[in-house]
Amino acid sequence: MKIQINQINPKTLGLDYNKDLITDCLKGVNTDVLSIFPELSVSGGMLLNTSSYNDLYSNSMLVCESLIEEKRDIIFGTPIQSSEGRFNSLVMVQNGEVLALSTKKNLSQFDIGFQQGGGIELVKYNNHTLAFGFLEDLEEFAKEKIQTDVIVLCSNYLFHQSSQKELFDEMVITARTLNAPIVFCNRYGAEGGYVYGGGSFIINRKGELCGLFSGFNQESKSFETLTLKPIVQNPSSKLQNIYDALTTAIKDYFNKNGIKKAVIGLSGGIDSALVVAIAVRALGKENVIGVLMPSEYSSEHSVEDALCSAKNLEIEHYIVPIKDMFNQCSTTYNEVLPNQSFNVAEENLQSRLRMITLMWFANKFRAGVLNTTNKSEASVGYGTIYGDTSGAISILADVYKTEVWELSKYINNQ
Amino acid sequence: MKIQINQINPKTLGLDYNKDLITDCLKGVNTDVLSIFPELSVSGGMLLNTSSYNDLYSNSMLVCESLIEEKRDIIFGTPIQSSEGRFNSLVMVQNGEVLALSTKKNLSQFDIGFQQGGGIELVKYNNHTLAFGFLEDLEEFAKEKIQTDVIVLCSNYLFHQSSQKELFDEMVITARTLNAPIVFCNRYGAEGGYVYGGGSFIINRKGELCGLFSGFNQESKSFETLTLKPIVQNPSSKLQNIYDALTTAIKDYFNKNGIKKAVIGLSGGIDSALVVAIAVRALGKENVIGVLMPSEYSSEHSVEDALCSAKNLEIEHYIVPIKDMFNQCSTTYNEVLPNQSFNVAEENLQSRLRMITLMWFANKFRAGVLNTTNKSEASVGYGTIYGDTSGAISILADVYKTEVWELSKYINNQ
Repeated sequence: MKIQINQINPKTLGLDYNKDLITDCLKGVNTDVLSIFPELSVSGGMLLNTSSYNDLYSNSMLVCESLIEEKRDIIFGTPIQSSEGRFNSLVMVQNGEVLALSTKKNLSQFDIGFQQGGGIELVKYNNHTLAFGFLEDLEEFAKEKIQTDVIVLCSNYLFHQSSQKELFDEMVITARTLNAPIVFCNRYGAEGGYVYGGGSFIINRKGELCGLFSGFNQESKSFETLTLKPIVQNPSSKLQNIYDALTTAIKDYFNKNGIKKAVIGLSGGIDSALVVAIAVRALGKENVIGVLMPSEYSSEHSVEDALCSAKNLEIEHYIVPIKDMFNQCSTTYNEVLPNQSFNVAEENLQSRLRMITLMWFANKFRAGVLNTTNKSEASVGYGTIYGDTSGAISILADVYKTEVWELSKYINNQ
Repeated sequence: MKIQINQINPKTLGLDYNKDLITDCLKGVNTDVLSIFPELSVSGGMLLNTSSYNDLYSNSMLVCESLIEEKRDIIFGTPIQSSEGRFNSLVMVQNGEVLALSTKKNLSQFDIGFQQGGGIELVKYNNHTLAFGFLEDLEEFAKEKIQTDVIVLCSNYLFHQSSQKELFDEMVITARTLNAPIVFCNRYGAEGGYVYGGGSFIINRKGELCGLFSGFNQESKSFETLTLKPIVQNPSSKLQNIYDALTTAIKDYFNKNGIKKAVIGLSGGIDSALVVAIAVRALGKENVIGVLMPSEYSSEHSVEDALCSAKNLEIEHYIVPIKDMFNQCSTTYNEVLPNQSFNVAEENLQSRLRMITLMWFANKFRAGVLNTTNKSEASVGYGTIYGDTSGAISILADVYKTEVWELSKYINNQ
C-alpha cells in the first residue's frame, strides 16, 4: 500500500491556515495513496488546555468535514468532542467516508482537557491490516503482539538534542518485535518556547531505515510500504540540529506572531554574537537591528567586537551610550536619598536602562526584543529582573554556555 | 467523640515549621480528643508537581514518624510514597499506631504528580464509625449512603468571593442526606498568588451550623460531635472577606519569602491608594515605602492625593519627578535616531522609568515592589510590559475596578 508522509508546520488555532496546508499536500497525489498528517494537524498543537477554547471543537469539526469531502484517503489529527467526551484524535478517511478513529489513551502533559481515549486502532484497508495511532500508545499496543501489515504513527514530537536517536532506536526494536514496518509522521516548527523536531521516517519490518525527512522543513513523500528498500542516510549532526532548531524558534515566533523585525543588544560577548547570527539567518539581515549600549565600564575591545559582528552580518546598528541616562537617574535619586554608595541597585539600574533602550527601539520599529541569556546564567539566576532577563523570546534559555561556544565555532567554520 | 479542628497555615516545603505548628496544636489537649489537621499539613500545599522534589516523600515520612510518636489521636495530611505509588494522603493515628489511610481519588489541578487513590476511608474509632477523607471525594462517597457517626474532611480549599457559601450549602445537603455531622477542617493563608480561605466549620446531622472559624486566622477548637448544639453566627461580609484575603496575600508573600519591606508607586489614583492601605495593614506602616513619580503630565491634584494618602497612613515617602530622566533618555535616543515623534515608545518609556525607580528603591531598601494593576486593566492588556505591569505581587490582579471602588469605600467607612 502507498503511504504519503506529510511533515507540516501547523499553527496553533490557525484552523484555516492548517486546512490549506493539508489540502495543498493532497494536490497532485494519486487517489490510491494514503496521505498521513501529524497529530493535531487541524488545530495545531500546544493547546495547553483545550477546555479554554469555546469554539475549538466545533470549528475543528468544520475543517474535518471539508477534509472528508476531499474524497481522498487520509489520516489527520484533530480534537474531537463526542457524547463520550473530548479526545485528541486521529481520523482515518477512505474515499469520503470515515473508516476509523484513534483517540489518544496515554495522555501527555500537553493533553490537558482531553479525556483518556482508546489507543491505537486496527483497520482493514484495501485488503491489508493497518494499525494507526499516537506514539504514546505504541508501547501498550506492542505488548499485544498483533500482526499488521503496517503501523502508522502521527505525532507532535518535541525536539531535544538526542530525541531523534532515542526514538529511532526504540522504533527499530518495535518494528522487529511486531514484524511490521513503522511509518512515523511528525510535525516540525515552533510554538512559543517549544520546537518540534520533524525527522519523520519509515522503517521496514527488519528495522532498517527506508526514508528519513529533515528536521525543520516541510516535506511530503510517498512510499510503497510492501516493498520498502533500505537506504543509507546519516542524520544531521548534533550542532547542526541545535542550529536549525534555534533558527526555527526565532523564525516561527516572529512569523506566527506577526512581528517582522528584531532588536538585539550587542555587548561584544559571545551570547549576543551567537543570537544575532541566528536571528539574521532566521529573519534576514534587513530585519535585525543591533543596539550597542556601552557604559563607562565597557572596554573599548567589547565595543569593537560588537561593531565587528554587526558589520560582518551587515545589519542596521546603533551605538547608544548609557552613561548620561545613568548619571541623570543617579542625580535624581540622590536628590531624594543622598549619599548612597554604589551597590546592586546601581548595577541593576544599568541593566534596566539597557532594557528600556531596547524596548524604545522595539516600540519605534514595531519589533520584538531578542533575549540573550544562556541556560548557565538562567540556572544560577545570574541576571537582572526587568533588565537583561527581558525580551520576547530567549533562544539560549536551553543552551549551556559550553554549547554556546561549541555552536559559535561550528557556525564560524561553515 | 471529641474532635479538635485545627485551622493552620503551613508553609510549602516548610516541613520543620509545619511539624512545630502541628505539635503546638496538640499541647494541652486531652488525650481522648481526635485532633484533625488540613490536607498536606506536613508538606504544605501548592507543590505544583510533587515529582520535582527528590526528598519530599522521605522528608515528609520523617515528620509523619515523629507525629505518630506523639502517641495521640490525630488525622493529618501528607504526601506518601508506597509500593503502589505516590498519593495525597491523610493519616489517621490512634495512640501511636496508624489506624487508617485515606488517599485522594478525585485529583485536582494542584495534585500533579499524585496517583489516583482510594477515596474516603471508613474506620471504627472508639466504638464509633468515622469516615475521613478529602472534600473532592465526598460526592462519590455520598452516593454509597453508608451510615456513619461523623464525616471528617481535611482540605486545602481556595478562597474566592462565594466559595464559602457554595461549599456550606453543599455540605448542609450532604449532612442531611447521609444523616451524619460533617467536620470541615481547612487551611488558611497564602502561597504565591493563591489564598486559602480557612472558615473551617462543623454541622450536625440536620445540617445546622454548630461551629464556624474565621477566614484568615489560626484557630483550634474542640467539639463533642455526638452532642452538637446549633449556633447562630453570620459569616463575614463579602467585602470584609476580600479585604482579609488581600491582606493575607501580602502578609504571607512577604513573610514566607523573607522580605520585610514593600515599595509602592503612589499615583494619586484609587488602585495604588487601595494597595498601599492594605499593605500597611499587612506589614505595618514602618515597612511600607511610598514613591510619588510625577511627570510633566501629572496634575497637581494627583500629587496632592498621593501625598495625602501617604500622610494619612504615616508611611515613609519620597517624591521623584521623572521629567529629567525622561528628557535625558529622549536626548540620548534623539542623537542616534533624530526627529522621532512622541508615540507609544515614549508613553512606555515613562512607565518603565517609574519601574526602574521603584526597583532602585526596592534594591536599596531590600524591599519588594507592590504591583497595582487591577483585573479590569489586566483583562484588556492595559499596561506596559516592564513598566506598570511589574512587581513582586499583584494583589488586585483578581479584583475588578468596580470592586476596587467598593472595597475602598468599605475600608474608608470602617
